[in-house]
Amino acid sequence: MTIAAKLAELGITLPKPAAPVASYVPVVVHGGVAYVSGQIAFVDGAVMTGKLGADVSLEEGQRAARACGLMILAQLEAAGLLEQVERVVKLGAFVSSTPDFFDHPKVANGASDLMEQVFGGAGQHARAAVGVAALPLNAAVEVDAIVALKS
Amino acid sequence: MTIAAKLAELGITLPKPAAPVASYVPVVVHGGVAYVSGQIAFVDGAVMTGKLGADVSLEEGQRAARACGLMILAQLEAAGLLEQVERVVKLGAFVSSTPDFFDHPKVANGASDLMEQVFGGAGQHARAAVGVAALPLNAAVEVDAIVALKS
Amino acid sequence: MTIAAKLAELGITLPKPAAPVASYVPVVVHGGVAYVSGQIAFVDGAVMTGKLGADVSLEEGQRAARACGLMILAQLEAAGLLEQVERVVKLGAFVSSTPDFFDHPKVANGASDLMEQVFGGAGQHARAAVGVAALPLNAAVEVDAIVALKS
Repeated sequence: MTIAAKLAELGITLPKPAAPVASYVPVVVHGGVAYVSGQIAFVDGAVMTGKLGADVSLEEGQRAARACGLMILAQLEAAGLLEQVERVVKLGAFVSSTPDFFDHPKVANGASDLMEQVFGGAGQHARAAVGVAALPLNAAVEVDAIVALKS
Repeated sequence: MTIAAKLAELGITLPKPAAPVASYVPVVVHGGVAYVSGQIAFVDGAVMTGKLGADVSLEEGQRAARACGLMILAQLEAAGLLEQVERVVKLGAFVSSTPDFFDHPKVANGASDLMEQVFGGAGQHARAAVGVAALPLNAAVEVDAIVALKS
Repeated sequence: MTIAAKLAELGITLPKPAAPVASYVPVVVHGGVAYVSGQIAFVDGAVMTGKLGADVSLEEGQRAARACGLMILAQLEAAGLLEQVERVVKLGAFVSSTPDFFDHPKVANGASDLMEQVFGGAGQHARAAVGVAALPLNAAVEVDAIVALKS
């Protein structure tokens, strides 16, 4: 099954890939590996803003992380790489959070679970999840990715 | 000398590898490189919690970073990769800290020094150390790793 | 044109590469890829300190990020790799910021724009920019890099 078919089966429509908000590119491929820039959560074109531990609930944070994951897929698709994914190698999950919020792994699962839904075993990745002071555009979550491509 | 023998010589017993606290895997290998997920410090099964600059001393932070390094080694061993390490390429050290704590490099040395003790020159790595707002389970330190494997 | 010549044309003199402030090395090469340790901004030997959103202006932050980029180039030069750069693959930009500062991408552009000035298309990279609670030595910005080398 193609990834496009799998997305359709899951009822997932990818968002329009967001243009970088600055001087960089969304994806760089080197040595069969795609490095995807940090993606923040856009829903219907609006950034999902706020901080975990303050004005963003755990459930909203998970939805934001999932939206980051969808944007990663959208960037891979825009680069013509979505059907070439061999393995999601690593996700870096940055969660905007107050100093007393400690459930970053549950938030990041929004992106991680998506990868497993879409790619199955090839979506199982290494991960680091941390709580940061603030994110671009007041985003609640940012996720970047290292993805191995079929040769 | 095997790494197992070196650990014995150093009097180091690796901890039980911690199960991921969420939807990801501890290690992914691609192209001869092992990506190890962010590991937090467990000592005797309990997370070393708190923040540098507040309730965690520099010395405690260094011990937490060393414990993160031990967990990285434990994950490599559990994946059957410990004796295959060619080079520790990069460590990412995330230190939970107040906005006015600036000794992250000294904290991170707890993990870095361990790598050099265990692997010698092959343990010399690139590194980024930063102070984050909060970490999973209120951990004081989290460290992830990129490790090159013998082919 | 060599990169040295391009730097001269741009009127850029690289700083003296800073010694690691701890137990790691500035650059590790594996598999044709150089991993450059997190570099903080030194100007005339002094660290550019402070926090975006508090005592560091956007313009100062951009200058700090550019100084981090210059230090990355200086480390590559010291390792004999500057003329071997095939592609700047990824920058990680860590901006010391208050919880209510959200212009990290503009800050990080100080480093990103430098890469494009120096390397042209080969300087276009993937990037993640986040706001952290604090950085080593109270640095305002820290940037690390993954750089592909000519074989």
